Amino acid sequence: MVASAFLPELWTEILVPVCAVVGIVFSLFQWFIVSRVRVSADQGASSSSGGANNGKNGYGDYLIEEEEGVNDQSVVAKCAEIQTAISEGATSFLFTEYRYVGVFMVIFAAIIFVFLGSVEGFSTENKPCTYDETKTCKPALATAAFSTIAFILGAVTSVLSGFLGMKIATYANARTTLEARKGVGKAFIVAFRSGAVMGFLLAASGLLVLYITINVFKIYYGEDWEGLFEAITGYGLGGSSMALFGRVGGGIYTKAADVGADLVGKIERNIPEDDPRNPAVIADNVGDNVGDIAGMGSDLFGSYAEASCAALVVASISSFGINHDFTAMCYPLLISSMGILVCLITTLFATDFFEIKAVKEIEPALKNQLIISTVIMTVGIAIVSYVGLPSSFTIFNFGAQKVVKNWQLFLCVCVGLWAGLIIGFVTEYYTSNAYSPVQDVADSCRTGAATNVIFGLALGYKSVIIPIFAIAVSIFVSFSFAAMYGVAVAALGMLSTIATGLAIDAYGPISDNAGGIAEMAGMSHRIRERTDALDAAGNTTAAIGKGFAIGSAALVSLALFGAFVSRAGVHTVDVLTPKVIIGLLVGAMLPYWFSAMTMKSVGSAALKMVEEVRRQFNTIPGLMEGTAKPDYATCVKISTDASIKEMIPPGCLVMLTPLIVGFFFGVETLSGVLAGSLVSGVQIAISASNTGGAWDNAKKYIEAGVSEHAKSLGPKGSEPHKAAVIGDTIGDPLKDTSGPSLNILIKLMAVESLVFAPFFATHGGILFKYL
Amino acid sequence: MVASAFLPELWTEILVPVCAVVGIVFSLFQWFIVSRVRVSADQGASSSSGGANNGKNGYGDYLIEEEEGVNDQSVVAKCAEIQTAISEGATSFLFTEYRYVGVFMVIFAAIIFVFLGSVEGFSTENKPCTYDETKTCKPALATAAFSTIAFILGAVTSVLSGFLGMKIATYANARTTLEARKGVGKAFIVAFRSGAVMGFLLAASGLLVLYITINVFKIYYGEDWEGLFEAITGYGLGGSSMALFGRVGGGIYTKAADVGADLVGKIERNIPEDDPRNPAVIADNVGDNVGDIAGMGSDLFGSYAEASCAALVVASISSFGINHDFTAMCYPLLISSMGILVCLITTLFATDFFEIKAVKEIEPALKNQLIISTVIMTVGIAIVSYVGLPSSFTIFNFGAQKVVKNWQLFLCVCVGLWAGLIIGFVTEYYTSNAYSPVQDVADSCRTGAATNVIFGLALGYKSVIIPIFAIAVSIFVSFSFAAMYGVAVAALGMLSTIATGLAIDAYGPISDNAGGIAEMAGMSHRIRERTDALDAAGNTTAAIGKGFAIGSAALVSLALFGAFVSRAGVHTVDVLTPKVIIGLLVGAMLPYWFSAMTMKSVGSAALKMVEEVRRQFNTIPGLMEGTAKPDYATCVKISTDASIKEMIPPGCLVMLTPLIVGFFFGVETLSGVLAGSLVSGVQIAISASNTGGAWDNAKKYIEAGVSEHAKSLGPKGSEPHKAAVIGDTIGDPLKDTSGPSLNILIKLMAVESLVFAPFFATHGGILFKYL
Repeated sequence: MVASAFLPELWTEILVPVCAVVGIVFSLFQWFIVSRVRVSADQGASSSSGGANNGKNGYGDYLIEEEEGVNDQSVVAKCAEIQTAISEGATSFLFTEYRYVGVFMVIFAAIIFVFLGSVEGFSTENKPCTYDETKTCKPALATAAFSTIAFILGAVTSVLSGFLGMKIATYANARTTLEARKGVGKAFIVAFRSGAVMGFLLAASGLLVLYITINVFKIYYGEDWEGLFEAITGYGLGGSSMALFGRVGGGIYTKAADVGADLVGKIERNIPEDDPRNPAVIADNVGDNVGDIAGMGSDLFGSYAEASCAALVVASISSFGINHDFTAMCYPLLISSMGILVCLITTLFATDFFEIKAVKEIEPALKNQLIISTVIMTVGIAIVSYVGLPSSFTIFNFGAQKVVKNWQLFLCVCVGLWAGLIIGFVTEYYTSNAYSPVQDVADSCRTGAATNVIFGLALGYKSVIIPIFAIAVSIFVSFSFAAMYGVAVAALGMLSTIATGLAIDAYGPISDNAGGIAEMAGMSHRIRERTDALDAAGNTTAAIGKGFAIGSAALVSLALFGAFVSRAGVHTVDVLTPKVIIGLLVGAMLPYWFSAMTMKSVGSAALKMVEEVRRQFNTIPGLMEGTAKPDYATCVKISTDASIKEMIPPGCLVMLTPLIVGFFFGVETLSGVLAGSLVSGVQIAISASNTGGAWDNAKKYIEAGVSEHAKSLGPKGSEPHKAAVIGDTIGDPLKDTSGPSLNILIKLMAVESLVFAPFFATHGGILFKYL
Repeated sequence: MVASAFLPELWTEILVPVCAVVGIVFSLFQWFIVSRVRVSADQGASSSSGGANNGKNGYGDYLIEEEEGVNDQSVVAKCAEIQTAISEGATSFLFTEYRYVGVFMVIFAAIIFVFLGSVEGFSTENKPCTYDETKTCKPALATAAFSTIAFILGAVTSVLSGFLGMKIATYANARTTLEARKGVGKAFIVAFRSGAVMGFLLAASGLLVLYITINVFKIYYGEDWEGLFEAITGYGLGGSSMALFGRVGGGIYTKAADVGADLVGKIERNIPEDDPRNPAVIADNVGDNVGDIAGMGSDLFGSYAEASCAALVVASISSFGINHDFTAMCYPLLISSMGILVCLITTLFATDFFEIKAVKEIEPALKNQLIISTVIMTVGIAIVSYVGLPSSFTIFNFGAQKVVKNWQLFLCVCVGLWAGLIIGFVTEYYTSNAYSPVQDVADSCRTGAATNVIFGLALGYKSVIIPIFAIAVSIFVSFSFAAMYGVAVAALGMLSTIATGLAIDAYGPISDNAGGIAEMAGMSHRIRERTDALDAAGNTTAAIGKGFAIGSAALVSLALFGAFVSRAGVHTVDVLTPKVIIGLLVGAMLPYWFSAMTMKSVGSAALKMVEEVRRQFNTIPGLMEGTAKPDYATCVKISTDASIKEMIPPGCLVMLTPLIVGFFFGVETLSGVLAGSLVSGVQIAISASNTGGAWDNAKKYIEAGVSEHAKSLGPKGSEPHKAAVIGDTIGDPLKDTSGPSLNILIKLMAVESLVFAPFFATHGGILFKYL
């Protein structure tokens, strides 16, 4: 009956860290290639052999500047200067943000320790295990202490993920601009490689830290795997908490700057996007890096950490955990390890096996990344499932044990993986301007901003349908085969290609910034056209990335929810009880409350930004003429102050709700809240993200004017274009602030409930107890 | 143990129809008063004693026209002409709509009969009852036949409610315009009385038809109350099905016309709203009557019918039903009867006890209606609960019996009633321009349409919070006291003041139309100012009405859901089963799918309208100068065709989903779908309705320019005003098409599931059976 996995424990112990290290090395190698593009004005022998304006300058390619007779060296110097400004702005903001969040984290760590410690009255004595009372487990105080440590580790890893991502992105954007002089293919490669640096670094370091933590904690816990993996869930909570503040704070920062810059610059003053005369332009570019890069990095790291923790904690009470089959237990980590190798091969298809020569090849190349990684990963999962799992085992299913075959678990992971691909394609269809939905939205700009908004909202709503069915099918299949463990590994399946997903996702903001730098450095409009083409593809991939993040968040939070329910000792969550139904209703409301806060924050901060930008245009003589320099720092300060101040209320809403509901109303109502926020939040998140992406690309469609239809709507400055700009501006907070934060909301509340489950089970529901 | 109600059965049999008749008589009396305002040019002795322009003309009041020297008689004639055009347009549309819907209804009636008849293979033999197997009940075929009849009755009553409401409104709008010449108070009274005609007619006739149907069906069913009230649920289904098409078709009609008219007229041509030169202006005014009046009438009738049916069907298997205590059984009808009397008294406060003298008194007067009716109704419910219920009885609670005291049921009704008031006030706060939320939205127009939209969306999301808590508390209290019966009577409590609610709701579109007629008839701008003031209050009351509709829909659909679950033999709806969770997820998606369809429909129809209006402006010489008449009929046709064609897909989505899910996936998944669509739909409905209302009033706030702040944003035609118009246009489909249709979606799917429950329980879930 008790079969073991094919792969010996020792091999598992070796393979996982090796794969993680391979990922990190590959990431560093990509970084090295990117670094060979020089941005300093004195470029040294390898790149520029001569001075200014002397024809061929040592690059192998023909530069646009030479053709147009622009001084090459001064452009490079200007790029370097702008890059430094952006990087410094981003670093300074992140440090400020982390300082505030750090205080919060310390307080929250204390809460975790005290609340969990109080479960057994801070007793230091061992106790019988929860699921197997014949064995002895470590005291609740130990779980409290280790959960707190895991929480801090998760938070720190998340901070590092975001920070390094930002550093890489700011390192890459000027390089992308400079390479765009040589051709769209070269620029694409730089942007893509930089994305890959981030993707691999994040996936690999997340895996490595988790792996090390498990092994270190195991020294104390020994045979008590129940306690061990319960403590490990703190890692997911830490990761997601940081991600929340990163997404919300960064999202408000970037969109306050973006909306503010656009409203005055593009609409009132009729100057191009990213024009250096616009005082908010640096803040806008800093924002891309702190919001879309650092925020997203933390977010996906959080998803990954939570999916792993959910799978591990559920597995710890299955037959793996009881039989102490370490390889099978590490199945989630093995999938992630395999994922790193698969993504590594996939990346080579974009960077080495093929070459981008024209603008129209960009989107297919990125799309192929998704297809290739999914196809190879399917084989990878089969291998891992075959060697890493016993042919048959049992899973804990809310009080009962359920027998699962290894091929069933293979199907669970696959269904998540392929659902991710479907979500990716649907997102692409609804947000890329190569297809009719976005073209329809662009067409509706003919009759003004109002119809544009109506069509855009309708598009977002419609784009929810297929992803929801894909998620529903994944849940049904994985849940039927392997209960909550199946759902957790399905989420991991969707996230297994995270390195590739992050690479193409990060590629977007890098290209966006590259375009901004080209504009600010006063480079030829042909370079801007190239970066715009990169950026349009980037909007789509960013939407795809958000689709993945949301889809996986839905699966992850369901798995965490299941783990919470098991841990809290609830056997059914019956909608037909008053406690659950009110939880469901209020839970479904939370994403609205949260979105109201974040959107209002962006709106208010943008208003302040608009006033400042207007003030500068009105009071600084020569600003419009380009003879005087705007005061960038004040705009940076407005964004910083607004985002720091405004991220606190939504952060508290998410972090405190599970505590308040669990403590006062008990675990049944909390279960309802989690289910409600999950099913409602996922819809708003998808629709918000796709609506915003569609508006952005509808605008780009009109600006690019590639087809007859697009030309009839343009050019820049025409009435339909103005309407499209309004739509794009409205979409900004939807797609970059409230939408992507919502998937953190649903995951975070679930993982927090799971971590505090022992506390709620013991002390929760005081309101009903005394009523 | 078996106590009876205090009120003898005979008295109940007399009191219910008497109250209904009193309501109808009161409604006719109000209609008579309204009819005394003459709109024919030859006004006869009672109103105009002389010819044109001869000073005092027999009205007791001083008319604005005389002051300004405008020809009074020609204005009246013009009003009469416009009124006729609107009335004819509305009648013709409704007849077209009903013809199409009629076909659907016949098909659906056949489906009901066949599906329900098939439960026992069309056997004509009696069988043991479902809940009490010692007794004998009528065959399923009888239930099939009577359900079908009830369905048709409900549909016909709904059609009549909508149609009569429309007739009354078109009868009243020109009269309101004419009275506005005398003063804002006079105009208010006419508009309000007309609203009351509709409110009382609808509440009373709904009650009367239901009462008669029960008594007629009882002749056949005799002691088999289980079958009797199961068949009665068809009444709710019929009412709601019609309401769906009325809301969706009417909503698309009105907003296609409104958006189309505004986009060209207000934004491009810079002519005022409702200017007679605008070719879409008649279609726009027709739309107000078919969408906001007929649609809403059908909608609230549907809610009322369903709440009553839900309460009755649950009660039929409680101790009332088993002991055949007719008075207690009729408790829901008694509450509605009491409601009619209470609303009658409440109406007198607005029409007779106090008089409106100034614009600023309008909103408080309407608000007082809500407060007064709620306070008096609380006493009324106490009386009904005391005389109409045994002091203690048992309620069927998913397999168990639950003992309930009469004071507990009193609290259930009250909590619904007062939750309605809270929802009303919150809605008012978020949509009236007297408070800061709308003023903030107006202020955000300073920086353009984009911030206006962002602030408006955020406002709508935020406005969900308190209503959801109010609904959650109602559910918790009523559910805890009396299970699903408690929830059903809480819904009835919220709807008990429906006559007043409808009166103040219908008041809105009537005032809106009155303003339109004033504009089209070329009356003084001072009259337009008065009607605008009425209309601004009307926007708020319309939003309040929608709040009631949504709040009650949430409670009703939960009660229907509970009844469905009981009837389908499901004992728990456990979120932690794959069948339920996927249902929940997909159910939560349905409101988005539905909204996508309806918004896209409005958008597309509006585009066609815009093209036609532009074409007319460009090709008809002299149109802008006012020397040539536009071709109103083509615009009416565009709206008609669009709405008829476009109402079918969303209609099918709602009507077919329960059938498909129930048949293929079974009752557990269907339960999930119902719960998911309920908790998700209610949020979108509230936020859409309030966002739209807020934008509309933000625009009115700028136009009215009453405060210093408002003046700084205006006047009409300023940049902030243009931004506000864009917001208003976006809000149109949100607040008048997709938002209000959503509450029908959630109710209708629930009542349909309930009606088909025996079928699903027998033949449902074939997909899982064979997998």
